[in-house]
Amino acid sequence: MSYARQLLDTYPATASADAGVLSAGIDALSDCAQACTADVDADLSEQNVAEMVTCIRLCLHCTDICTATLGAISRPAAYDAGVTRPLLEACVAICKSCGDECERHARMHEHCRICEQACRELLEALK
Amino acid sequence: MSYARQLLDTYPATASADAGVLSAGIDALSDCAQACTADVDADLSEQNVAEMVTCIRLCLHCTDICTATLGAISRPAAYDAGVTRPLLEACVAICKSCGDECERHARMHEHCRICEQACRELLEALK
Amino acid sequence: MSYARQLLDTYPATASADAGVLSAGIDALSDCAQACTADVDADLSEQNVAEMVTCIRLCLHCTDICTATLGAISRPAAYDAGVTRPLLEACVAICKSCGDECERHARMHEHCRICEQACRELLEALK
Amino acid sequence: MSYARQLLDTYPATASADAGVLSAGIDALSDCAQACTADVDADLSEQNVAEMVTCIRLCLHCTDICTATLGAISRPAAYDAGVTRPLLEACVAICKSCGDECERHARMHEHCRICEQACRELLEALK
Repeated sequence: MSYARQLLDTYPATASADAGVLSAGIDALSDCAQACTADVDADLSEQNVAEMVTCIRLCLHCTDICTATLGAISRPAAYDAGVTRPLLEACVAICKSCGDECERHARMHEHCRICEQACRELLEALK
Repeated sequence: MSYARQLLDTYPATASADAGVLSAGIDALSDCAQACTADVDADLSEQNVAEMVTCIRLCLHCTDICTATLGAISRPAAYDAGVTRPLLEACVAICKSCGDECERHARMHEHCRICEQACRELLEALK
Repeated sequence: MSYARQLLDTYPATASADAGVLSAGIDALSDCAQACTADVDADLSEQNVAEMVTCIRLCLHCTDICTATLGAISRPAAYDAGVTRPLLEACVAICKSCGDECERHARMHEHCRICEQACRELLEALK
Repeated sequence: MSYARQLLDTYPATASADAGVLSAGIDALSDCAQACTADVDADLSEQNVAEMVTCIRLCLHCTDICTATLGAISRPAAYDAGVTRPLLEACVAICKSCGDECERHARMHEHCRICEQACRELLEALK
C-alpha cells in the first residue's frame, strides 16, 4: 500500500474525497511529475534536440503543475472547490498536451513513450 | 528593473503578453510565494497557534500554486490558454482566500498584515 | 517497475550511477516528500497542534529539500559531485531529524509513524 | 523594503541570523530561481539550441536548488547548521557553475548575460 494511501487512512480530519481515489491521484501525480523531469533530461541528450523543444517545454510545465496539484490534494482538510477545480482543470489540460506531444516521439524515443504512459495514467486517475 | 522584466525584454521568441504586465505578475508571484512561506513559519511561532491553523493551510496552498503559476508564465513560449487560464483562476482563488484569512489576523499579527498585502498586490497584478 | 526505473533504463546518455540505485533513491524521495506534506496537514488537524510545531517545521523543510534532490538526481547527465554531494548531505540530515521527530509522536499519531517510515526508507535508499 | 525584509522584521521568534543578511539572501534566491527558469525558456527559443544544452541543464538544477534553499531560510526558526550549511554549499556550487556557463553565452545571448548577473548577485548575497 502506498504511503499516500496509508496517510489518508490515518488522517485525523475528514478528507474531502474517497481515500482510494485521492491516493491513486496522489501517486499518479508524483509519478508524472518525476517522469516529465526525467524526460526533459533525456530529450536534452538526443541528437535531434531541436525537434524536442516543444516536448521539453510541455514537460517542464507539466512537472510544475503536477507538483502544485500534488501539494493541494495532499492537504485535503482545506479543500476548496473554487481552487481545486480549476487547478485540476489546468493539470488535465497540460497532461493531455504533454502526453500527446510525447506520443509523437514515442516510436523514436522510448523515454517519451514511458513519459506518455505516465501522463495517460494520471489522466485516468484524475477522471 | 527586475530580472523578470529584463529577461522578457531580451526574450528571443514572441511572448504571449505585454512584457510589463507579465513581469509585474512574475514579480508579484515570487513575492507572494515567499511571503506565504515566511508567514507559515511566523504563525507556527505564535502562542495561539491553534487559531492559526486555517491561515497556515491557506498559505501552504498559496505558495504551491503561486510557484507553479510563476513557472508557467516564466515560460511564455508554450502559452496555452487551456492551461494558463484555469491555473490563473486557481491562483486568484487561493490568493483571495489566503489574503482574507490573513486580514483576520492582521491586527494581532503584523506578519499576517504583510502577507495579506503580498496577496492583494498579486491579485492586483493578475487583474 | 517504477517509471523512474523505466526512464533510467531508456536513458540516452550515460547516467552517473547504477540505474537500480538511482531509481530506488528517486522513488524514496518522491514518497518522502509527499509523506511529509501529508503529515503536515495531519499534524495541523490534531488537538495538540502546539506540540506538533517542530514536527511541522521539519516536515516542511524535508519536503522542500527532497523535492530539490529529486530534481537533481532525475537529471543525471549534468552530474557534478560538488553540487550533488552536499545536496545529498543536507537531504540525509533533514531526513534524519524529521524521522526522529516523527518517531516521538508515532505512538500517539499513526500518521507520524508512517511519515517516520518514509524518512527511514529514504535514508536506507540514500546509503 | 522587500516583503522578505518586512516579514523578518516582524518575526515573532528569534531568527538565526541578521534580518538584513537573511532578506538579501531570500530576495537574491527568488530572483535567481526565476531568472534561471526564464533563461531555460529563452535558450529553447534559440537557433543554436544544441549548444545551449549544458546551460539549460545547469539552469534547471539551479532553479530547483535555489527554491529549496529559499524555503529553508524563509523558515529560520528550525535552523539547523547540519542541514543549512550543506544546502548553502550545494546552492553556491550550482550557482557558480550556472553563472560560468551563462557567461560563455553572454555575448551572443543577452538573456544569458542577465541570468549570469542574477547568479553572481546571489553568490555575493550568500557570501
